[in-house]
Amino acid sequence: MQNFELTILGCSSATPTSTRNPTAQLLNVAERFFLIDCGEGTQMQLRKFKIKFQRINHIFISHLHGDHYLGLMGLISSMHLLGRNTDLHIYCPAELQEIIEVQFKYSETRLNYNLVYHHHTYNNDELLFEDEKVEVRTVVLNHRIPCCGFIFREKALTGNISKEVIQKYKLSIEEILYLKQGSDLTLENGTIVPNEEIISNKTLPRSYAYCSDTIYDERLIPLIKDVDLLYHEATFLHEMLERAKQTHHTTALQAGMIAQKANVKKLMIGHYSARYKDIEPLVMEARTVFENTIPAVEGEAVVIAAVPVN
Amino acid sequence: MQNFELTILGCSSATPTSTRNPTAQLLNVAERFFLIDCGEGTQMQLRKFKIKFQRINHIFISHLHGDHYLGLMGLISSMHLLGRNTDLHIYCPAELQEIIEVQFKYSETRLNYNLVYHHHTYNNDELLFEDEKVEVRTVVLNHRIPCCGFIFREKALTGNISKEVIQKYKLSIEEILYLKQGSDLTLENGTIVPNEEIISNKTLPRSYAYCSDTIYDERLIPLIKDVDLLYHEATFLHEMLERAKQTHHTTALQAGMIAQKANVKKLMIGHYSARYKDIEPLVMEARTVFENTIPAVEGEAVVIAAVPVN
Repeated sequence: MQNFELTILGCSSATPTSTRNPTAQLLNVAERFFLIDCGEGTQMQLRKFKIKFQRINHIFISHLHGDHYLGLMGLISSMHLLGRNTDLHIYCPAELQEIIEVQFKYSETRLNYNLVYHHHTYNNDELLFEDEKVEVRTVVLNHRIPCCGFIFREKALTGNISKEVIQKYKLSIEEILYLKQGSDLTLENGTIVPNEEIISNKTLPRSYAYCSDTIYDERLIPLIKDVDLLYHEATFLHEMLERAKQTHHTTALQAGMIAQKANVKKLMIGHYSARYKDIEPLVMEARTVFENTIPAVEGEAVVIAAVPVN
Repeated sequence: MQNFELTILGCSSATPTSTRNPTAQLLNVAERFFLIDCGEGTQMQLRKFKIKFQRINHIFISHLHGDHYLGLMGLISSMHLLGRNTDLHIYCPAELQEIIEVQFKYSETRLNYNLVYHHHTYNNDELLFEDEKVEVRTVVLNHRIPCCGFIFREKALTGNISKEVIQKYKLSIEEILYLKQGSDLTLENGTIVPNEEIISNKTLPRSYAYCSDTIYDERLIPLIKDVDLLYHEATFLHEMLERAKQTHHTTALQAGMIAQKANVKKLMIGHYSARYKDIEPLVMEARTVFENTIPAVEGEAVVIAAVPVN
């Protein structure tokens, strides 16, 4: 069964603390390694958690507040110094390209590999990345500056046809590929064998939505409906609602409300304000409206288990 | 007695390792806190070592390779978010101002305090900072891109005049200030009392030279002559001399040679290549030519003890 696993590299908000780093996450979908935001120190966190960072080919940057991108220059440079020669795709605000290029100009750096930029257009449901296993689409967030979240969706998994079934019906390769797309099998005598009896181990495609940074905004709900895992920022406790509104952030209670209204399967909160040494009250608050809430904890991974269709 | 203490925050070269961070140092001279270079993660290192970073008013950036400045944006931002309202002086290549300003433009950040830039002119012995206790001057280094080291010198310490001496000679405040400048005392009967008999606890002014990054360059020697502590980069073992030359870095043996020829009192090496998990061979190599060599070790502080004049 292919992987669908999220590892937290940083979960603080703008000001890091002695125990929490700025935002960065690594999502592994079928051995595609997607880096989501890249706060200062991300390359050190990757080393600390023994993640081979040359396996990262796609980096998604939500917005240009420093706690979400200041680790990118160092990571790009280290990839270069350690011999990378394959393309690195960066999905980001257009202005980030200018920020990167001015720094490489003055350091007189010529990378051994290509940076391929894909600029945000700030439209919802825009296809950013697609291959045979996964696709990534945008979800526009509502923050002080333009900001974009991301939804990662596994493609419909085809499942397997067992040797026994292949032998029983004497299936050709063409027939196998045809059946894997979901068709029923029609035998020579006209009998129809339903697809469910042919295909085994078929699982539901999994999905992950990353929503940070944003104010509470119900326009998100239809876009992230039914995802398996929602990461939603929860910078403050609800007693600081006014501060959350002023700074275009969300309270833990509100993150729970979004999760509940969008009918997601699991909520992870993060982007904690430095004022909360203990994050348990934030988790408890979100759980008052959405029970299946977990906290983002650095170095910890969440596996989204595959669920059989039948 | 006033402090003269150097704390190492980062000592790796361009690629950090799981145990070593990019370059940053904090020098405390008489409670002036000077930050010297500011590699990625410096703000986390300051927190880790429980150093109050709002006490830093002067930051010296040697050059625009990322491992020497990529932590600056995050540190400046955190100082802002944590309520700073006093000026922060940055001594740096002119281009760094552009790099900082383009990022604040796109993040729509308006700092609550002033950044005061002092651009390098790449002349030797230029006065960058001066107050009643200390002065800081430039030393031009020889690297792949323009690069500037720094020499921190305590001003001549005036020492004290004890109560007993003041009473014995019935000294006025004007006379005390005059004598503290080094003059002898002439009594009414014409007898001359030498300054050494008036002033006690007078110590030699201390000095620290920071030389990173640079190729081996003997033009440094007269500029750093006799300093109490020299930090000189030692990126490679001497068996990698060709690589050192290519990349405009120094070997540990060469760092020892510079220390020996400049007659410094103590040498600290650092800026270690990531290939050296164990830095002991670098230290041993430097010691073959300069015995009083110590390694830069993160979180460790070196105190330069005051030495009485007499």
